[in-house]
Amino acid sequence: MTLLDDPLDLAPPNDPARLLSRHGREATSSVIRDLLDWTRRPGMLSLAGGIPAAELLPVQRVGEAVDRVLATHGPAALQYGPTDGEATLRALVAPTPDRVGDVVITTGSQQSLDLLARVLLDPGDAVVVEGPSYLGALSAFRAVGARLVEVPGDAAGLDTDVLAAALGAGLRPKAVYVVPEFANPTGATLSAERRRHLVELAEHHRFVIVEDDPYGALRFAGAPQAPLAERTDLAVRLGTASKTLAPGLRVGWATLPGWLRGPVIRAKQAVDLHTSTLDQLVVADVLEDEGFVAGHLAELRAVYGRRCRALVGALARLGGGRFEVAPPAGGMFAWAGLHPSLGVTADEVLASALPAGVAFVPGSAFGLAAGEGERVGPAGDGEHRLRLCFATLDEARLADAVERLVGAVDAVR
Amino acid sequence: MTLLDDPLDLAPPNDPARLLSRHGREATSSVIRDLLDWTRRPGMLSLAGGIPAAELLPVQRVGEAVDRVLATHGPAALQYGPTDGEATLRALVAPTPDRVGDVVITTGSQQSLDLLARVLLDPGDAVVVEGPSYLGALSAFRAVGARLVEVPGDAAGLDTDVLAAALGAGLRPKAVYVVPEFANPTGATLSAERRRHLVELAEHHRFVIVEDDPYGALRFAGAPQAPLAERTDLAVRLGTASKTLAPGLRVGWATLPGWLRGPVIRAKQAVDLHTSTLDQLVVADVLEDEGFVAGHLAELRAVYGRRCRALVGALARLGGGRFEVAPPAGGMFAWAGLHPSLGVTADEVLASALPAGVAFVPGSAFGLAAGEGERVGPAGDGEHRLRLCFATLDEARLADAVERLVGAVDAVR
Repeated sequence: MTLLDDPLDLAPPNDPARLLSRHGREATSSVIRDLLDWTRRPGMLSLAGGIPAAELLPVQRVGEAVDRVLATHGPAALQYGPTDGEATLRALVAPTPDRVGDVVITTGSQQSLDLLARVLLDPGDAVVVEGPSYLGALSAFRAVGARLVEVPGDAAGLDTDVLAAALGAGLRPKAVYVVPEFANPTGATLSAERRRHLVELAEHHRFVIVEDDPYGALRFAGAPQAPLAERTDLAVRLGTASKTLAPGLRVGWATLPGWLRGPVIRAKQAVDLHTSTLDQLVVADVLEDEGFVAGHLAELRAVYGRRCRALVGALARLGGGRFEVAPPAGGMFAWAGLHPSLGVTADEVLASALPAGVAFVPGSAFGLAAGEGERVGPAGDGEHRLRLCFATLDEARLADAVERLVGAVDAVR
Repeated sequence: MTLLDDPLDLAPPNDPARLLSRHGREATSSVIRDLLDWTRRPGMLSLAGGIPAAELLPVQRVGEAVDRVLATHGPAALQYGPTDGEATLRALVAPTPDRVGDVVITTGSQQSLDLLARVLLDPGDAVVVEGPSYLGALSAFRAVGARLVEVPGDAAGLDTDVLAAALGAGLRPKAVYVVPEFANPTGATLSAERRRHLVELAEHHRFVIVEDDPYGALRFAGAPQAPLAERTDLAVRLGTASKTLAPGLRVGWATLPGWLRGPVIRAKQAVDLHTSTLDQLVVADVLEDEGFVAGHLAELRAVYGRRCRALVGALARLGGGRFEVAPPAGGMFAWAGLHPSLGVTADEVLASALPAGVAFVPGSAFGLAAGEGERVGPAGDGEHRLRLCFATLDEARLADAVERLVGAVDAVR
């Protein structure tokens, strides 16, 4: 939206909406909100979610944790706490014992993104995002008036050659945002070669790498790689309890290079003082229980792995060549492409899929808004992509969902 | 801080701190952080806190609430939830049943302030604050680059005549921030006459009244008045569970005029998706229990009222005319003045008080930073004021603390 098409220019002088800031006036895409209404309908098979399977949330273990936390800490569990977080939890999530002091607990990873946007980005500053990227990150960067620069990604993650060319041509981003493992929406994992390249580019051109890793612990195939943050003090690594324990507790964490710690804590002080003391102590109680965590993660990986194979298998078996998909090695999402010969877009398929009782998020939803920011490198194929979340449906329902998808494609061919 | 004295201009080109935004570079006053270190020393009697009495936090009732919430809601208590908050809690904190839709649950009142700052204030926009005012509000307004305009307050709250004169002289604030009941730091309550005047000024000059009411339920003397938000759709009313139930749960709420609801929810979506589901459901479980709430509030009022009378009484009895204080009718703070004949400032008294084993926050801490914003109307007497929190010490220790204060004053006279 530009100043010229600001609807408030036409509003009556006494309309209180005239008191809104520019940020307050920004409309957001309603694609996902409209989808939510559809997914609440009875009988809908939703591949549109981005939430953990409810039946795998550790209700009983959290209940035990609360009892123990209240018995052990008493009123301190309900009292104000330090802005950087509870020391026990910081120690448990720090990558190494010498980095406990670099950890700040946040109200979910979304708050880490918001805080980093505030302390790094002035209005007009460039931030590189992968095309397509996690919408919550785009929202956080947008909110501070940053200029979003979209660099394409593929099955090996952000294309660092395209980024290098843009940097060579004069692009000067303050930060580059990546989800290195099983990204949302693509399920892609950043390759070892591109990790090396990205760190080299950051060191040479002096930008911050925001390494957002909500899904890394959900690997059900292949071997993990070393985090970017282990290789440079220009990287911030974000973690969260949302995908492995419980999103409703809103507990995330950022491991920061020393020069960012003070600014992030001061910013957090102004936005919510600190994250819920009770929720932090509950997460710490569970994470301390190594036996439980190992078993719980093993179960998550087994169930999500089975569901992923069921979805990918059904797309191949029932899809009859309509869908192309690179099987993800973990996480919650598959990024299915519609075969070019079909001549249909994901938006068109969605319009016939919803009434047929299956929901997904079309690729067109994951990117810059019309007229926003800039794209470098070749255009992506998002309009022919479907983000399919395999986390919340069992294998039989995943197969049913794919059958309905096939019908929806055929209805619009 | 201006661009000219930005310390990073002198930093080496490779210093990563050069990547910080202007907001990220802002230093904050260290007065209160330094004080915190002092208050942790053994034997210190601290009147410097702003936290509820630990022994009054309802640990057992929260434990029961968690058990019931997990048994009733199961995994839904740990799952992602709606950005505007859990419907049961919104219904419980709405001022009237027809306004449930106007309530947004926030991660403490601090987040309400942050969200309002974002959706109302562009850089350079004026926001009026009372001099002195709650530091967390100043931080939230500062973070968006707003211009802070300080209007003096007294024992009847914000001086609306001074505000009216400034408005008449051309001041055009987007918002005016007030804590109408038992303010932090002054303990003052906005008078009925000034409430009427403030609403009239808002309607005439079209600004938003941010009515922050964390302490209203802690009234131990006098009769309550109708909230400002009942009188105009230009007012936002903020409430919180922090002072009456438990601050560590980080649950607050804003009741918004309809035109602000959408912008605030969109902003919240980008900053933390939603407030902890578990904490919201726990607060709802407790608030539904009207018998418990009535008894708990009665106990808080009784204890805080006794402690307030003990502190004010000791200041009169032991102070020998050194202190002047208007007894607050509720809340957690008394705003004691040093008698002018003493010729000492609160900062000077603090320097001798800390080694003598008593801490308080000097009035100089509650206001604009040097060179920041602007003041209208007569200068306040903050440099001769002490914010004394009576919530966390029992009556005997409050008397001891006052004895030490008297000694500290005499040491610097």
